[in-house]
Amino acid sequence: MMLVSLSILGFGNVGRGVARVLLEKREWFRRKYGIEFKVVSISDSSATVWDESGIDLREALEVKETFGRLSYWGNEYDLYHLPPEDVAKEVESDVFIDLTPANPEAYKWHMEAFRMGRHVVTSNKPPLVHHYVELIQEAAMRGVNYRFEATVMAGTPIITLLQESLLGDGIESIEGVFNGTSTFILSEMERGLTFDEALKKAQSLGIAEANPDVDIKGFDAAYKATILHDITFEPISFKKVKVRGIDGVSEEDIRKAAEKEKVIRLMAKIERRNVVVEPREVPKNSPLAVYGTSNVALIKSDLLGELILKGAGAGVKETASAVVSDIIKCVRRS
Amino acid sequence: MMLVSLSILGFGNVGRGVARVLLEKREWFRRKYGIEFKVVSISDSSATVWDESGIDLREALEVKETFGRLSYWGNEYDLYHLPPEDVAKEVESDVFIDLTPANPEAYKWHMEAFRMGRHVVTSNKPPLVHHYVELIQEAAMRGVNYRFEATVMAGTPIITLLQESLLGDGIESIEGVFNGTSTFILSEMERGLTFDEALKKAQSLGIAEANPDVDIKGFDAAYKATILHDITFEPISFKKVKVRGIDGVSEEDIRKAAEKEKVIRLMAKIERRNVVVEPREVPKNSPLAVYGTSNVALIKSDLLGELILKGAGAGVKETASAVVSDIIKCVRRS
Repeated sequence: MMLVSLSILGFGNVGRGVARVLLEKREWFRRKYGIEFKVVSISDSSATVWDESGIDLREALEVKETFGRLSYWGNEYDLYHLPPEDVAKEVESDVFIDLTPANPEAYKWHMEAFRMGRHVVTSNKPPLVHHYVELIQEAAMRGVNYRFEATVMAGTPIITLLQESLLGDGIESIEGVFNGTSTFILSEMERGLTFDEALKKAQSLGIAEANPDVDIKGFDAAYKATILHDITFEPISFKKVKVRGIDGVSEEDIRKAAEKEKVIRLMAKIERRNVVVEPREVPKNSPLAVYGTSNVALIKSDLLGELILKGAGAGVKETASAVVSDIIKCVRRS
Repeated sequence: MMLVSLSILGFGNVGRGVARVLLEKREWFRRKYGIEFKVVSISDSSATVWDESGIDLREALEVKETFGRLSYWGNEYDLYHLPPEDVAKEVESDVFIDLTPANPEAYKWHMEAFRMGRHVVTSNKPPLVHHYVELIQEAAMRGVNYRFEATVMAGTPIITLLQESLLGDGIESIEGVFNGTSTFILSEMERGLTFDEALKKAQSLGIAEANPDVDIKGFDAAYKATILHDITFEPISFKKVKVRGIDGVSEEDIRKAAEKEKVIRLMAKIERRNVVVEPREVPKNSPLAVYGTSNVALIKSDLLGELILKGAGAGVKETASAVVSDIIKCVRRS
């Protein structure tokens, strides 16, 4: 049995989703991979619970879900108030797992974890978008893994596919729909709502944020497209990415598309040194015309031709799927 | 630069396709992976050309395409007449590449290559279908790789995806269309041809063999489904696989399906200890309703939900894509 210690930073929906999978599948991971996971720290914005002998995940989930914060959990475990960088440095773990919301400082935590010889698994996009080269180089130099499947298309394994297959193919382009919130709003407009009505509905359902800019202005899709560009071709500066969101799409645009049996989707197109995100018309029966939280990618390459990968692009379990797969990938004997 | 020696068994369409990629992308492989490939033997049914210092692939392709057999190429290289097992054993190579047509004896060659410490890459299905456990165990024991992406869906990386991603997911089922010849015949019947007419057309276009049984009786799809079952769940005896081909599909069946906006496809369904291949109705606008040589797989798992992978299921370049990717995967520093 291989004992693997985990340090989890971020205990929101995804963090708890990962904890739940680790808890429920404990026996299965032992049997299938010969791996026993031990979570030695969990941090939310209120505190870090840290115990080298392992934290009871069932209780951690209960405390967080009952009281909303880990700092209420003081009886059995010591509580610490550490900046994330110190968690990455001080907590002895094999894998540092950063599931905090987008944070421009996060790359420092990842660098610190690499320096300490830890693998890093993350769902946090800004480090990849803005510090790709230094992070990849540091991980390589330290002989550890940097895995980030959850940053694009949730658990749909577009990143693993691009890293582990088609190794003899020259990739020509990747096109896809990577932002489910935009798809939701556009779909509601297809059913007759105005943009503002559709946005409000998305917000009331928790699909869009109170400040929806990162989705409707196209930045979320652009971050994801940048990450795909970097792993497929070479690092590109985010400033060079052309981004236009769906906030300029009118009801008239939707109607005109419908007359041609088309729908509008926020499409990303990734070619070498050229990343464009913009609303585009696609035929209704095209594989690119996704609905709901489905994401899709169409990869074109010189030998294989066209490859379509379609699956969940959001969701707690769906994102936990990526994180847990990445953790296993970091440590399993292949 | 890492020098990697290859021994290629089988110099038909796929073998030559692989040689062409190795030739045309030589510089790119050096730059991208730091790998220099050297082909030290090529065998067709007429002879084995064997030269430890490396064979000129351009000439090999010319000889084969001009004269139809390698045995005509006697001036520069020594010709050998060796059974495949001896090629696997005697030719010093890092990777033994078996691209011969389905051959029940091939597992012996693979075993021999493993014993000699060579990785094996193959497009040959019977060894996987009938000798999965002993082959996997031997490769593991020798610390070498056994890769066979080309056996299912040509270069569409269903096998790599199942082996390298979704590692925390429990796979519930895989459904898919894995035989393009059946799809071609059914599509032609949708356009009004009888089964016999469609079969003859497929034969005249070289899509179906003179003896078409392996395709139209469902065995090809069943072999592929068995391989997917084995890597996803556990080895299953081919005798337990339920196979019904498209040879019983009538024009009447096609018409009835069309009335319901459906098409008939030869579908494989893979669940734990249960593999079924049979013609089934699928809605015309379903992702499973593929056309041409496209193959599709719909993977259902407990965390991610539904994942669709669609791409080429046949073709020379498309199959070479899988073989070359596998070769690189065997030897690259990851």
